[in-house]
Amino acid sequence: MYFEDFAPGQVIDLGTRTVSEEEIIAFASQFDPQPFHVDQQAAADSMFGGLVASGWHTCSMMMRMVVDGLMAASSSMGSPGVDKVRWLLPVRAGDTLAVSYETTAVKASASKPDRGVVWSRWSALNQRGELVCTIEGMGMFGRRPQESGHA
Amino acid sequence: MYFEDFAPGQVIDLGTRTVSEEEIIAFASQFDPQPFHVDQQAAADSMFGGLVASGWHTCSMMMRMVVDGLMAASSSMGSPGVDKVRWLLPVRAGDTLAVSYETTAVKASASKPDRGVVWSRWSALNQRGELVCTIEGMGMFGRRPQESGHA
Repeated sequence: MYFEDFAPGQVIDLGTRTVSEEEIIAFASQFDPQPFHVDQQAAADSMFGGLVASGWHTCSMMMRMVVDGLMAASSSMGSPGVDKVRWLLPVRAGDTLAVSYETTAVKASASKPDRGVVWSRWSALNQRGELVCTIEGMGMFGRRPQESGHA
Repeated sequence: MYFEDFAPGQVIDLGTRTVSEEEIIAFASQFDPQPFHVDQQAAADSMFGGLVASGWHTCSMMMRMVVDGLMAASSSMGSPGVDKVRWLLPVRAGDTLAVSYETTAVKASASKPDRGVVWSRWSALNQRGELVCTIEGMGMFGRRPQESGHA
């Protein structure tokens, strides 16, 4: 996909991913070792009532789905960041996340004619159809190479 | 730290962390397998001129430092999300990140007297003093238990 292939309102289905207890604990042990992310008993006694994935783990799993379903076959030139990351409901072991990418706006670069910016909204629903995480993404994408139409 | 221990303008130094090539590739292989994050040769040929960490990896490393330096010894009750994640400069193998947490605002909950919200700005500087990543965080913290001062 080139910059020209994105249009506001377009929604790309990125498929599903199930997260295991082992994955939740492995990620959080490295990056977010709060008791309710790494210790089953402490998690059961916490406000969550059981083990929950680190929000950063949820974002990282969503990123993998964006790469596999979109970026890998695109002219992606990286991202300056993301906005409004929202962890709306806990993600628990065994949950299956269905992730989608909605293009919300596009803008060709005024200064760099080879690229444009695409704004997007990433959403993850669990197996009960509940929205568990949203992210507002920004990405730079190269423009489709022009045929050299002039002599 | 309880909610009452946070005040706007306060800056907490979370120390430093050096990131290795192995860590960059291991994280990105799982969560962000774009060529410039996982393949040295492809990265050398990319706009980055060498391997760079996934932005989500940088955020996750910062989260670990926030947990170790602050959350672990706090009344943290989780976070509804983060805003304005900005990947300002590449993070490369061998870089040492110095991370800090600045409290930007605090607000006691009107509806739940046992807690309050703390807004923060997380910053990562590399070994050259260049700002490489910023995150605007939101966290819920329990209030300090009251002495029962009345009869």
